[in-house]
Amino acid sequence: MKIGKSTVPRTAICTSNEHTIVVRGEDLCNDLIGHLSFADYFFLLLTGRRPDAACSAVLNATLVAIAEHGLVPSVQASRMTFAAAPDALQGAVAAGILGCGSVILGASETAGRMFADVAARVDAGATLDDAATAVVTELKAARRSIPGYGHPLHKEVDPRVGRLIAVATEAGADLRYVQIAQALEKVIPGIVGKELRLNVSAAIPAVLMGVGFPVASLRGVPILARTAGLIAHLAEEAETPSGFALSYQATRELQYEGSVPDGFGEAP
Amino acid sequence: MKIGKSTVPRTAICTSNEHTIVVRGEDLCNDLIGHLSFADYFFLLLTGRRPDAACSAVLNATLVAIAEHGLVPSVQASRMTFAAAPDALQGAVAAGILGCGSVILGASETAGRMFADVAARVDAGATLDDAATAVVTELKAARRSIPGYGHPLHKEVDPRVGRLIAVATEAGADLRYVQIAQALEKVIPGIVGKELRLNVSAAIPAVLMGVGFPVASLRGVPILARTAGLIAHLAEEAETPSGFALSYQATRELQYEGSVPDGFGEAP
Amino acid sequence: MKIGKSTVPRTAICTSNEHTIVVRGEDLCNDLIGHLSFADYFFLLLTGRRPDAACSAVLNATLVAIAEHGLVPSVQASRMTFAAAPDALQGAVAAGILGCGSVILGASETAGRMFADVAARVDAGATLDDAATAVVTELKAARRSIPGYGHPLHKEVDPRVGRLIAVATEAGADLRYVQIAQALEKVIPGIVGKELRLNVSAAIPAVLMGVGFPVASLRGVPILARTAGLIAHLAEEAETPSGFALSYQATRELQYEGSVPDGFGEAP
Amino acid sequence: MKIGKSTVPRTAICTSNEHTIVVRGEDLCNDLIGHLSFADYFFLLLTGRRPDAACSAVLNATLVAIAEHGLVPSVQASRMTFAAAPDALQGAVAAGILGCGSVILGASETAGRMFADVAARVDAGATLDDAATAVVTELKAARRSIPGYGHPLHKEVDPRVGRLIAVATEAGADLRYVQIAQALEKVIPGIVGKELRLNVSAAIPAVLMGVGFPVASLRGVPILARTAGLIAHLAEEAETPSGFALSYQATRELQYEGSVPDGFGEAP
Repeated sequence: MKIGKSTVPRTAICTSNEHTIVVRGEDLCNDLIGHLSFADYFFLLLTGRRPDAACSAVLNATLVAIAEHGLVPSVQASRMTFAAAPDALQGAVAAGILGCGSVILGASETAGRMFADVAARVDAGATLDDAATAVVTELKAARRSIPGYGHPLHKEVDPRVGRLIAVATEAGADLRYVQIAQALEKVIPGIVGKELRLNVSAAIPAVLMGVGFPVASLRGVPILARTAGLIAHLAEEAETPSGFALSYQATRELQYEGSVPDGFGEAP
Repeated sequence: MKIGKSTVPRTAICTSNEHTIVVRGEDLCNDLIGHLSFADYFFLLLTGRRPDAACSAVLNATLVAIAEHGLVPSVQASRMTFAAAPDALQGAVAAGILGCGSVILGASETAGRMFADVAARVDAGATLDDAATAVVTELKAARRSIPGYGHPLHKEVDPRVGRLIAVATEAGADLRYVQIAQALEKVIPGIVGKELRLNVSAAIPAVLMGVGFPVASLRGVPILARTAGLIAHLAEEAETPSGFALSYQATRELQYEGSVPDGFGEAP
Repeated sequence: MKIGKSTVPRTAICTSNEHTIVVRGEDLCNDLIGHLSFADYFFLLLTGRRPDAACSAVLNATLVAIAEHGLVPSVQASRMTFAAAPDALQGAVAAGILGCGSVILGASETAGRMFADVAARVDAGATLDDAATAVVTELKAARRSIPGYGHPLHKEVDPRVGRLIAVATEAGADLRYVQIAQALEKVIPGIVGKELRLNVSAAIPAVLMGVGFPVASLRGVPILARTAGLIAHLAEEAETPSGFALSYQATRELQYEGSVPDGFGEAP
Repeated sequence: MKIGKSTVPRTAICTSNEHTIVVRGEDLCNDLIGHLSFADYFFLLLTGRRPDAACSAVLNATLVAIAEHGLVPSVQASRMTFAAAPDALQGAVAAGILGCGSVILGASETAGRMFADVAARVDAGATLDDAATAVVTELKAARRSIPGYGHPLHKEVDPRVGRLIAVATEAGADLRYVQIAQALEKVIPGIVGKELRLNVSAAIPAVLMGVGFPVASLRGVPILARTAGLIAHLAEEAETPSGFALSYQATRELQYEGSVPDGFGEAP
């Protein structure tokens, strides 16, 4: 069935014949394997350009920063899935990735788009402070949360934030979006009524956008990073299972709020 | 509900408090972010050990080698899924990962277990040639294919194989499993009746097992690598859609082999 | 880690002890198994109420209408996934379900919300024609498509639409939302500039909302229905494989639009 | 890329033109919508045959029996996924389905194959008791569990078992596989050393195989049934969230068994 206008698929990522695999215009075997790190290759696959040194340093730092944070909900979902279906590692990884959504890890992209919005207003003549104030005010008026600000555990300061900014600074990256992120943090209390500190999901776009990482693919960073963490958790799950123990604990205080038939729970 | 014996979940991967995130015994922010590449961090997450230089070189090379090979079935599945559900990038990535199964990318692990079997027989006193012959003979007797040998496109030689072995050699990696893989390739024609050359799914365990990568997690290498490739394909799909064009082309020669009611296909 | 306000999970769907399983207040074994059809049980699970005869007739009709439409993109994704990972039926089903997104099957819910919007305007005093005109005009102004109108194959009329309305009429269902759907169809040409006929994704909410099916769960109808279709396709795939043939056909006319290294494609 | 022998996809399930959709040789709109229940349509899709009354009764009963059993691991995984990614209902359903694997819900199929094995031995001349004894003895020798026997909650008797057998009996279904299942239950204690009562995952194939349901698709029954349960749980999750509360409870007693850096946990 024809859906949409185009009927011929197109790609600029990879072609190959029996002897050569070409990726982004380069010979995979001669030019890339053994010459490029995996994170640099990810950037090349995504953009068609090799990253410079600053970009490589910052991209590796963000992937390391977000890959693992213990038994978060998506890791629990993945480990429970593996416990139930241990023959399909890929299924348990997929279940974990499905939890990289708008609420938990998708904030990287939403925060990045917010930074781009502030940058566009500055480019159009606003001061940084005014642009930040306007954007936060509009989000509050629309009753939306500020993506990438506030964290359930790291309330005072998310330790990954300062470290990512330090790596970007040392690497000589453009810090424009870091300054935007900090300007937003400064104006939030006056508008929202409480301090919400920059968290890792805002720090990631803040440093990556300064090294040319595409905004539209920001959600790919936590997805790729968490895949590494999930594989590690599933290796541990295969050795020392916790998936069913997690599900047991999860429901120990479960409240049933429906009705029951007459006689339910009485001695039979 | 209690399933299995253990009711207390356990982990040795990560713990954290408000100020510090600890991964594999190290302080994520002070010791890891900015100090370790993403691939090295993957190895640390998985094993609890930092990789040495040879391990890092080989692991990066394998991840680069297997991340991308054009519009293979799992990439098509992922792009079709994104075309139908563009709001959920994570869903399209998950659909692509679900195709990393026993037939396509799972061979890395199966081949690794076969190499470990050969190694165990050599350790028990057999010559390499006899051990290889015995293992292939047993697979043939069980009517099973030889995992990691033969490729639908790269029939004569998979160009990634030689390159991965060269990287391992230059890095000073232990080449024991490479020699096992080559010994198997040598005996296959005499037993199976046709040449089946070592493909990338056998080269990956052959080089990784020599640098201490755990056999049980070998399937994690193509899964992590392909996630990078999938994210790149989905970024391209968002810009220049091909998902529905692929599905249109796929069914142009579809044969319907069922029956039809009287009058079907006639002018109404 | 505590995320959000609530720390105690709650449910009103099911509780059980060693002797009895209670679902929505009824005894699963005594009252439900053998007494209720699967579709009726789905309604009970979802709403806590048993459906009346009209609701049962309409719900069964919609599930039958949407379960299967040949080798659509999500079925192709599912069959390719199964071909690559035949050990994990659940993974191939999941891959197919992941394609039930905003573009393809999610329109049921979006159309349902649009009908509810029209109904609310009528309840507030507008005529049906004015309310329909206003809603379509607003969608056009926002450059959004009209969910559930137009179909790539069934351009003139989607044959499922008339049949679903006939079933609802025969069953004595409330036809209010059918009338709303038809009022929208009538005003579309004058506003959008072309005829877009009611398709199955609009007919489903139009008939279901008249029998009390919850708008918020409308997307569940195509998801459940397609799961049945996917299981049938995967049973066929296991017997007579087409997954790899689909992927082969899909790329026969693939255009590679990137660059290649010097000498690529020449005789080696 | 050509993988495997066939390059032309084939199907016998569905074909269509602009006016008519044909499913299994019948006109979807004229012959099926409004004439067939959803469960009967599932059987038709799967087998190409309409079920008889006994088959319909038994299939509906099994789907109702297995659709819901409270906050089991796959439901928890699904609800946590929805909490993290509420925009993608299909992703949360997929995460739940991915837990229908070999350990939890896949036993239906494995048990069905075991019953077919017993039946084949009886057809070859063995008594039912001898055939059952031989099969259990072989499983024990291979250190494999008996699929479909024993349950973590319903230790004495799974209440769904008796009810499913009663429905099959009342419907006039062939009870051959029920008798096989009961013969296995009788010989288990003498061979395995403990009583393991028939659970719902064995009762499902026992009753379905007597009405002609294909053994190869048995895993499809719990997958389809659970999809209905998952959609209900996700509707409840959208109204009264429990996903994050489940993950919070799950880790309250989490034991961290790795090392920590000097000074971790001290006042800063």
